[in-house]
Amino acid sequence: MKTLQNLFEDGLQDIYYAEQKILDALSKMADAAVAEQAAKAFRLHRDQTEGQIQRLQQVFDLIGQKPEGKPCPAIDGTLQEGEEIVKDYAGSPSLDAGLIAAAQAVEHYEKARYRTLATWAAQLGLTDAAALLDETLQEEKLTDDLLTQLAEEIANPEATDSRA
Amino acid sequence: MKTLQNLFEDGLQDIYYAEQKILDALSKMADAAVAEQAAKAFRLHRDQTEGQIQRLQQVFDLIGQKPEGKPCPAIDGTLQEGEEIVKDYAGSPSLDAGLIAAAQAVEHYEKARYRTLATWAAQLGLTDAAALLDETLQEEKLTDDLLTQLAEEIANPEATDSRA
Repeated sequence: MKTLQNLFEDGLQDIYYAEQKILDALSKMADAAVAEQAAKAFRLHRDQTEGQIQRLQQVFDLIGQKPEGKPCPAIDGTLQEGEEIVKDYAGSPSLDAGLIAAAQAVEHYEKARYRTLATWAAQLGLTDAAALLDETLQEEKLTDDLLTQLAEEIANPEATDSRA
Repeated sequence: MKTLQNLFEDGLQDIYYAEQKILDALSKMADAAVAEQAAKAFRLHRDQTEGQIQRLQQVFDLIGQKPEGKPCPAIDGTLQEGEEIVKDYAGSPSLDAGLIAAAQAVEHYEKARYRTLATWAAQLGLTDAAALLDETLQEEKLTDDLLTQLAEEIANPEATDSRA
């Protein structure tokens, strides 16, 4: 019979796989971005992701398991859409807006997962694991706020034209 | 040259496809749920989704386009994980916890998309479209809060055992 502990372990493996994929995707998005402030936001998120992977390794350690990922179709699909933006909008003045939207989709995926995992860790009495997962959740919230601000500020030639 | 208008239209088609899939998935999740409060939350979200699809049709109408969906790998992957939960945790006391987590992942996907689309509509000067998209975004936020509360409250036999 599968238990909450199984759900928690499956979820950890899922996000561990996802974070590695996200690390790689954010490097590519930083390279593709036109505006320096967008590239900087993606690099910051990439650096945070490295710290988040280390925290996940600590959580695996706390439950006496070897860090291991399992394929996660949700993040694969989400990142695939980001790659399509890079391809379809190369050279477009709206490339950065598309990249920021793709990064926000990733951010929301992570927020959902970390909130769930932190809740389950607390319900299982894994207090230290819950604290680590919550630390990442708070970091994700701040990054999402930064991206929201960026989405509103980022130079949008069409909007400027229509107001001129 | 692709523009912000193209990004907006692509995004609309993407979420229009996603909402139809979500409608179907939420019906299945409501049928699979054990606790009545979980089934009720999924049915509420399903009914809201019907209204959100109608709002999207109004937005298509406002920009003079026929409502049309285009495959969205992100939602396909997200819903696939929900289906795996239903299969792997059938008969488990933790099935509902897994279903709620899957519903929250869907909710976060929708929040990310509607926020992006509302921002782009406003930047493109599409005030009425922005208002409709923002209305759905606010609805999604409330549903997400409800699911978060449910995730914390839902009967968790293991946690109860460990506290006994």
